[in-house]
Amino acid sequence: MKLITSSDNQTYKKAARLKQKKYRDEQNQYLIEGPNLVHEAYKCNIKIEMVLISEDYRDSGIFPNVQTVKVTSGLFRKLSDTESPQGILAIVNKRAYTEAEFFAQKTASSNLIVLDRLQDPGNIGTILRTADAAGFNGAILIKGTADIFSPKIVRATAGSLFRLPVFMVESPKQAIILLKKYGKKIICTAPNCCNNYNDVDMQNDVAVIIGNEGNGVSDEFLIKSDYLVKIPMQGTIESLNAAVSAGILMYESVRQRYQHGCLERDNS
Amino acid sequence: MKLITSSDNQTYKKAARLKQKKYRDEQNQYLIEGPNLVHEAYKCNIKIEMVLISEDYRDSGIFPNVQTVKVTSGLFRKLSDTESPQGILAIVNKRAYTEAEFFAQKTASSNLIVLDRLQDPGNIGTILRTADAAGFNGAILIKGTADIFSPKIVRATAGSLFRLPVFMVESPKQAIILLKKYGKKIICTAPNCCNNYNDVDMQNDVAVIIGNEGNGVSDEFLIKSDYLVKIPMQGTIESLNAAVSAGILMYESVRQRYQHGCLERDNS
Repeated sequence: MKLITSSDNQTYKKAARLKQKKYRDEQNQYLIEGPNLVHEAYKCNIKIEMVLISEDYRDSGIFPNVQTVKVTSGLFRKLSDTESPQGILAIVNKRAYTEAEFFAQKTASSNLIVLDRLQDPGNIGTILRTADAAGFNGAILIKGTADIFSPKIVRATAGSLFRLPVFMVESPKQAIILLKKYGKKIICTAPNCCNNYNDVDMQNDVAVIIGNEGNGVSDEFLIKSDYLVKIPMQGTIESLNAAVSAGILMYESVRQRYQHGCLERDNS
Repeated sequence: MKLITSSDNQTYKKAARLKQKKYRDEQNQYLIEGPNLVHEAYKCNIKIEMVLISEDYRDSGIFPNVQTVKVTSGLFRKLSDTESPQGILAIVNKRAYTEAEFFAQKTASSNLIVLDRLQDPGNIGTILRTADAAGFNGAILIKGTADIFSPKIVRATAGSLFRLPVFMVESPKQAIILLKKYGKKIICTAPNCCNNYNDVDMQNDVAVIIGNEGNGVSDEFLIKSDYLVKIPMQGTIESLNAAVSAGILMYESVRQRYQHGCLERDNS
């Protein structure tokens, strides 16, 4: 196997550039790191352009039909986004969906999560992971949301990024047009509204809007929403963490689907 | 107001030492930072030993009957745990509860959350914040859980640390003895068990155990639990983020309490 020893090597330079959003956007590719993520990407049929392993990597980093190169451990550390690199990373292609493809997806439910300009990588990754677990149909990302192909978010999704379809839109306005076109009910959280989230039918065709950590949901969504809901809170507390709110709302949808027999209990 | 200009000043040195767990444990004090947290601590009757403001802090940092000192902006930056310091921090006392006091607390519910050696500061802070919002009675922390008085966790709790009673125990075994003594039902999540979490009565007197991010819930809790529950997940996903799981379980308890009329809906 070829060993890359110089930071002038073209393959190395390409991988290093993908640490920047600009190049991820240009190339439609991103980096994934660690044996779990690389194996999961392979299993999920994500197109892997190349696997890079550190010269001291012990496991077999060999995937059939995938080009694999070795790099010195010093160069590998520079590529890695973690303090304790696990010795394997890969350049993979972003999966792109057309509007028709995205909205035609058939998964466990017909529900969508919408990230309205969220910033925190941990929150964003966690929300995509929860949406995947809850069987949501996909995620719509409003421009201004942090890049989900950044190393931190890719890591926080724990592989869900390879399964959950994502679709980027320019603005809340464009999202609203699409959601109405495809018959989705828009659900926003708002602190002073009257519907408890448990009282709203969230079984099918809902789009749950999660607002920016500091500013909440955009006014456009609030005005055009089908339901404003609140998550009840005790005492003087003002808000929940965005990923926790998203988890509570998405799993309320799952609960309602179980309750109404849309999902079967697996009491094995 | 006195201006501290030297890092040899005793007050400055005391504040700086509280960035270390060792001194927080010794002094039973910790640092809080930013106007929101300092105001919230004051409102919650947390004992504030001293407020420190940066010489360029514009707002009035004055709290009646609380000693306040100024420090140079250079020294303030060294005390601060954030990249953009907000110019105010305070030395506050930890609130300590005896066993009897902790278990005699009356809040919106008689439920407890138990952190079984969690490590991630964001997760821990978020769980305490969610427990506060859900009206939980308190949090039990098993030794080995990261120090909740560290700056990152204090920040992530967003003030809930001043309201939610916390109680530290040495081991899962000691926690189990206490929980049984006070009539709490132990609920653990386990991936391959048969109870869906929605099917278990979680209205009153439950202790929800949240396991370490890597290793899950300790065997002791699993063996002695009253209910093993699972949060259903689609496809190949293995687990949810710990703070999201905790949020889903705690709000299931809130939902059941509403449903059974223990909590009144505030449809204002």
